[in-house]
Amino acid sequence: MHRSLTRGSKKAGLAPGALVHIGERKVDEVKMTVMSYNEESFREEEISGLDSHLPLISEKSVTWLNIDGIHQSDAVERVGTHFGLHPLTMEDIVNSEQRAKMEEYEDYLFIVLKMICFDESGRYYLKSEQISLILKPNLVISFKETEGDIFGAVKQRIKNGKGKLRRSGSDYLAYTLIDAIVDNYFVILERIGEVLENLQTELITTPTNRTLQSIHKLKHEMLFLRRAIWPIREMTSNLTRAESPIIHGATSVFLRDVHDHVVQMIDTVETFREMLSGMLDLYLSSISNRMNEIIKVLTIISTIFMPLTFIAGVYGMNFRYMPELDRVWGYPAVLILMASIAVLMLFFFRRKKWL
Amino acid sequence: MHRSLTRGSKKAGLAPGALVHIGERKVDEVKMTVMSYNEESFREEEISGLDSHLPLISEKSVTWLNIDGIHQSDAVERVGTHFGLHPLTMEDIVNSEQRAKMEEYEDYLFIVLKMICFDESGRYYLKSEQISLILKPNLVISFKETEGDIFGAVKQRIKNGKGKLRRSGSDYLAYTLIDAIVDNYFVILERIGEVLENLQTELITTPTNRTLQSIHKLKHEMLFLRRAIWPIREMTSNLTRAESPIIHGATSVFLRDVHDHVVQMIDTVETFREMLSGMLDLYLSSISNRMNEIIKVLTIISTIFMPLTFIAGVYGMNFRYMPELDRVWGYPAVLILMASIAVLMLFFFRRKKWL
Amino acid sequence: MHRSLTRGSKKAGLAPGALVHIGERKVDEVKMTVMSYNEESFREEEISGLDSHLPLISEKSVTWLNIDGIHQSDAVERVGTHFGLHPLTMEDIVNSEQRAKMEEYEDYLFIVLKMICFDESGRYYLKSEQISLILKPNLVISFKETEGDIFGAVKQRIKNGKGKLRRSGSDYLAYTLIDAIVDNYFVILERIGEVLENLQTELITTPTNRTLQSIHKLKHEMLFLRRAIWPIREMTSNLTRAESPIIHGATSVFLRDVHDHVVQMIDTVETFREMLSGMLDLYLSSISNRMNEIIKVLTIISTIFMPLTFIAGVYGMNFRYMPELDRVWGYPAVLILMASIAVLMLFFFRRKKWL
Amino acid sequence: MHRSLTRGSKKAGLAPGALVHIGERKVDEVKMTVMSYNEESFREEEISGLDSHLPLISEKSVTWLNIDGIHQSDAVERVGTHFGLHPLTMEDIVNSEQRAKMEEYEDYLFIVLKMICFDESGRYYLKSEQISLILKPNLVISFKETEGDIFGAVKQRIKNGKGKLRRSGSDYLAYTLIDAIVDNYFVILERIGEVLENLQTELITTPTNRTLQSIHKLKHEMLFLRRAIWPIREMTSNLTRAESPIIHGATSVFLRDVHDHVVQMIDTVETFREMLSGMLDLYLSSISNRMNEIIKVLTIISTIFMPLTFIAGVYGMNFRYMPELDRVWGYPAVLILMASIAVLMLFFFRRKKWL
Amino acid sequence: MHRSLTRGSKKAGLAPGALVHIGERKVDEVKMTVMSYNEESFREEEISGLDSHLPLISEKSVTWLNIDGIHQSDAVERVGTHFGLHPLTMEDIVNSEQRAKMEEYEDYLFIVLKMICFDESGRYYLKSEQISLILKPNLVISFKETEGDIFGAVKQRIKNGKGKLRRSGSDYLAYTLIDAIVDNYFVILERIGEVLENLQTELITTPTNRTLQSIHKLKHEMLFLRRAIWPIREMTSNLTRAESPIIHGATSVFLRDVHDHVVQMIDTVETFREMLSGMLDLYLSSISNRMNEIIKVLTIISTIFMPLTFIAGVYGMNFRYMPELDRVWGYPAVLILMASIAVLMLFFFRRKKWL
Repeated sequence: MHRSLTRGSKKAGLAPGALVHIGERKVDEVKMTVMSYNEESFREEEISGLDSHLPLISEKSVTWLNIDGIHQSDAVERVGTHFGLHPLTMEDIVNSEQRAKMEEYEDYLFIVLKMICFDESGRYYLKSEQISLILKPNLVISFKETEGDIFGAVKQRIKNGKGKLRRSGSDYLAYTLIDAIVDNYFVILERIGEVLENLQTELITTPTNRTLQSIHKLKHEMLFLRRAIWPIREMTSNLTRAESPIIHGATSVFLRDVHDHVVQMIDTVETFREMLSGMLDLYLSSISNRMNEIIKVLTIISTIFMPLTFIAGVYGMNFRYMPELDRVWGYPAVLILMASIAVLMLFFFRRKKWL
Repeated sequence: MHRSLTRGSKKAGLAPGALVHIGERKVDEVKMTVMSYNEESFREEEISGLDSHLPLISEKSVTWLNIDGIHQSDAVERVGTHFGLHPLTMEDIVNSEQRAKMEEYEDYLFIVLKMICFDESGRYYLKSEQISLILKPNLVISFKETEGDIFGAVKQRIKNGKGKLRRSGSDYLAYTLIDAIVDNYFVILERIGEVLENLQTELITTPTNRTLQSIHKLKHEMLFLRRAIWPIREMTSNLTRAESPIIHGATSVFLRDVHDHVVQMIDTVETFREMLSGMLDLYLSSISNRMNEIIKVLTIISTIFMPLTFIAGVYGMNFRYMPELDRVWGYPAVLILMASIAVLMLFFFRRKKWL
Repeated sequence: MHRSLTRGSKKAGLAPGALVHIGERKVDEVKMTVMSYNEESFREEEISGLDSHLPLISEKSVTWLNIDGIHQSDAVERVGTHFGLHPLTMEDIVNSEQRAKMEEYEDYLFIVLKMICFDESGRYYLKSEQISLILKPNLVISFKETEGDIFGAVKQRIKNGKGKLRRSGSDYLAYTLIDAIVDNYFVILERIGEVLENLQTELITTPTNRTLQSIHKLKHEMLFLRRAIWPIREMTSNLTRAESPIIHGATSVFLRDVHDHVVQMIDTVETFREMLSGMLDLYLSSISNRMNEIIKVLTIISTIFMPLTFIAGVYGMNFRYMPELDRVWGYPAVLILMASIAVLMLFFFRRKKWL
Repeated sequence: MHRSLTRGSKKAGLAPGALVHIGERKVDEVKMTVMSYNEESFREEEISGLDSHLPLISEKSVTWLNIDGIHQSDAVERVGTHFGLHPLTMEDIVNSEQRAKMEEYEDYLFIVLKMICFDESGRYYLKSEQISLILKPNLVISFKETEGDIFGAVKQRIKNGKGKLRRSGSDYLAYTLIDAIVDNYFVILERIGEVLENLQTELITTPTNRTLQSIHKLKHEMLFLRRAIWPIREMTSNLTRAESPIIHGATSVFLRDVHDHVVQMIDTVETFREMLSGMLDLYLSSISNRMNEIIKVLTIISTIFMPLTFIAGVYGMNFRYMPELDRVWGYPAVLILMASIAVLMLFFFRRKKWL
Repeated sequence: MHRSLTRGSKKAGLAPGALVHIGERKVDEVKMTVMSYNEESFREEEISGLDSHLPLISEKSVTWLNIDGIHQSDAVERVGTHFGLHPLTMEDIVNSEQRAKMEEYEDYLFIVLKMICFDESGRYYLKSEQISLILKPNLVISFKETEGDIFGAVKQRIKNGKGKLRRSGSDYLAYTLIDAIVDNYFVILERIGEVLENLQTELITTPTNRTLQSIHKLKHEMLFLRRAIWPIREMTSNLTRAESPIIHGATSVFLRDVHDHVVQMIDTVETFREMLSGMLDLYLSSISNRMNEIIKVLTIISTIFMPLTFIAGVYGMNFRYMPELDRVWGYPAVLILMASIAVLMLFFFRRKKWL
């Protein structure tokens, strides 16, 4: 079972808090980027190795530390220790098979999210990536599994140097990152919606076995999506109601908005699921219909030709004394009899509405 | 996927609060109408362009600003800024793919509703239109996607100049508008009910493949309706329990009434869904029944004629020494044998209740 | 859609509180009866026209005003105005397509109930009638759609002049009326239970297409019943928990009892629904079984006679050089071969447990 | 509908509190037994007729009055009046078609329970019996429908004279009685579990139509069991949370234990239901599989012999000029052709994996 | 029904608190081990017989008493009495058919858990073992049914003498034990996931009747797993929210983590269940598809050869006057006619898309 259906068994028996990376290794090198900004200034820096200094948190600006690659446990551990994270937090970050969740610790919020993207390997439509966020006053740390560009637009907006983002605190940055991930789901859902639309047309015009397989595959993917999205709903709901001093009232309105989007996504996924079920039903009943058609053809043909063949068989018998055989009118009479039977049968089928 | 199954992906990556119209563009020109009224006076005015002055709110009368067309973001932005709306509110107004909801802001209530009407384009039965309401003391702003006449009767009642509407505040006006939208659902449901009734008759008398397709299509539309109505229920429930000073106690009774209607609508939609499921089951079992009938006919015919044809075949063999062939009674004896077999078979089928 | 699946669309666009009768007109004339009673005295009076005086409420006796026929809005309006009912209450009384509900107004309780009876018109099993109750201190007003005798036994008990009813207040009278309506459901459920029992026997012994239709019809009626009963449950639950001064503590115990009965009814309806689903499943699997039987017969017959007919065909060929044909033992040998094949086939089918 | 699916319609129209026995009459004579005990002493007495004195409650010992037979309303009424029971309580006791429930009255608790036992009459597996308990300080009254021995072990434990039961109050006695009834369910469930196990084996090895009927019958019985157990869960839950002074803290722990058992029972019943559904699915798919097998045999036979018979038919035609007929190699050539076609066909079926 | 679907009926009629072992006897000898440790010291001891002294609880170290084998009630009773356990606790420990639960007693917490492992006996995939924990300040008692090595890693970590475990109290030890059991589920789920993956591949490539049986068996096992896991969820949830002084705040964070894992497990089980349902649907529709294919072949063959055989039959009749028979072109003409009919039929099937 790939795709995070099960939490790795590698952990079984280990002490909790033991940092063992669970999941596929998706990048070679861990890459860290630091951005610090306030309304006036902006600074970006890349941290190359494990030995370099980690950034200090300034009270006058927001610091965003982004880490791509979580398979190197010592990197995560170093960051975690530097910023005072709980061992369980660090464990959850390196274990890429978490459900989305939000946890309040004494001086930080820990948020786990799942990002969805299309799987190019072909076996499945979708694959997920875990993104973890640490939110402290003036600090956001984000952990991603790959170098993917999900936060590209956010970075751009910070660089551009104006807008609410530069004027607001770390909570608004965290919101912006969550919003970017949630918005990405809509892109996915829209494309799935198009696939669905096509399948539906195909189902009505030319249903094949391949259509059935596609419906089942999509249904399976919906299970996967649902599993990813439902916990996000719970997470955003908790976030909206969190009474943490780290989140300001003004940001709460925005978090509520994200929550609304997640609820809408769930709505869509559930509708997709019901549509797929409906399509399956339609497929099955159209198969039944076709079988009916086929059997009807078989029955009509059999019912017409069996009696005729029987009559031909009778006059093919070699009895010496069969008076009809010697009559001149015998042959045409039998042909007329056969034709009448055939016509009668056809009439019968028409009355039964089989023709 | 048309019909608002997915929130537009156009938004992905943009800053929240960025005003981008999402959805189909349904009218060419944005059209604004202002009505102000109190018990004594009434004034109506059309605001032609974007440059004209927006109305001032008077404390002595109720002002209703209606805007048809939301695709021009700058128009919405201008109105929004003028009346102090939150950026997220404005974003939700121009994004026509929201769920129905009610949000309390500091000095106004924001209500999103979905109106349903029949789709003339033929692909679907139904389509939806988003209607947003802003409720402030002495002010109601309504945003519609098209110029449709859903609020026509309300306008008429205001003009007529008597009745509770002219004597009451902006909260009662908002209630009247919501009530008009909800009442419209009943018209739709009634017509769907008639279609259902006809389908049911058709199903029992002359079920065809077309009947099946209609049932599936209606089932699909029910999904759509359900998706539209359920959030309205939540919205009206929140509205009834809202402790906002903008809503007076006397209006609360009316809002509770609207909520009751929405609950009744949901009841109806769920009943329709169950009826459609029942119809599908009936269709499938009647298909099975028909297949049974057809196969029965095939089996009866085969079972009668196969042995007879075999006997004819036997006496059609060309063996030199077949004593029966030379007997005078040979032919009639075989004919009698054949008739007996046929009668026996028919008797057997009658005992098995196949005939 | 008859039978209150939809709230009339006649209302759409009208002002709330506008009194428009919605539903079938079931009686010609509105008929009002007044009863006043206390432990000692009892008086009954019929109010003939709209112009006659409506009764005054006495503090020393309980007054019960019963109105049969709600299609004449002016009669309802006159009563409503006389006793100070809210416009929405009057609207709900004349609109016979409400869900059961209980609403607390300032000085009265408004209760809507659905009575179920068998439909003689034949199209459906059941039809419903709306009964509205107004409960004030010392006053109960009941509105019925027809002159039906549902309250006959209650009237008799009041006339008989003894028992708790005569000693208690208007809240106990209201309870008695609700109890009469709820008890009537049990009569209906018991008769449906008998129909179900018969269907079940029929299903096991001689299932026909008519059985299937009956199951589906009953399933449909269960939907109808369920739709009627579930809101009653909510209503009685609210009534039990209502903290209105109009309902005394002693009556609360009785209302809780009615609530228990409604819960039991829902239980029964849900059980009926599950039984019907089970019956449908059983029907479908027995159809599959029969089809299997039929196809088995067809296959056995075909499998036996096809090879035999083929052999007969072979020796019916007209080749000049077919040595077997000239042998004396040819014919009996072929007959023995045929018999062996038939026996072998039968043996094969018995081993496959088809015989 | 026997077996308490509906509350008797006999009641309809009667005053509430009117004592009318509803249900089957199960014993001839009402039988009353009184036990009084405390840690030191123990006394048992049988009360023969309706005229004899009912026991007085002593403050120093626990009195347990057991009544077998509830069809004689006057006996119940006499007991009820003697111990100050509410009219509705008495009505519920004689109406044997109640759901399990717990009701708090001013000075007593009223508990209704359903006992399940196997039905020897054969029509159903199970039947239920209603057992009502009245719990007062120092007094427990139990009403049973029959003389069955469900409380035998409890009586024995009281007689044996030691153990917690003799040292504890009436609340512990009530608990012991409830526990006896609940434990009885486990005996039933265990036996049903064995039946299920056997059915499952039968289903995999030799499924017949009788298996199907058994599955459906068991499914039906599960509905019945579920209907009986779910209200018990609610009842025990209420009992655990009841803040009545009649129940002491120490007994609460035991009631929680009973509640746990009921929850476990519900678990089991739901699991049984799902298992039965799974078995039905398995049955249906194995029927489909068998039909497939049968049709495959038919198709193979037809597909092999139809072309052969056709060829034989061709050379059975009586045309004068058919050159092949006169050739010496004609007959063997045709036989070889036929054999090749048959082999080809078999090869084709093997490739299609039909053989 | 093995595998704890029902609570043993052995108990019925016994006094609550009576210690009767319910379930299979899984080990011969009861085995007790005592470990006491604190940050500095560590001591392990085996208690051989029932007569040996039970350990005293020291306030300066954590004592862990592990008992393997619960069938010897007197051993459990002795331990229970020694440490002051409630009779119901002891009853639950020896009855191995409990649901997972957590109960707060005055001075200890009682936790029941189910461990799952693969069943080597072959009849089922899985079997469960009950593990009970008693948590007191400075003391943990664990009861297992077998000597299995589920706590081996924990013991090792204690012996190794460093880490949080040695520094923390008995609550952290209890957490560690629960975590070990929960982690074990992931191992099981992962292996089931692999089986599922293989089944899915098999289903698409070469579905057989064995595949169907495997799907049903797995579905059945999922019922079993679900029944085991759901109560654990409730238990961990209660544990997280328990306000017992025995559990310190620092441990709560870890318990919340375990709870998260259990929720994730439930997610996985539910997803497995839905996947299995989807696979069953796919199997059934692919069976329908194959049946369609088979019937199509049958129909094509019949429809082509029946008319041909009939024509051959006609010219096999022995009428004296059949002019065609004497013509030289008769035979080739008929052959051409037959070929044309065959080609026409094939053309017809191709147009119907059957070929």
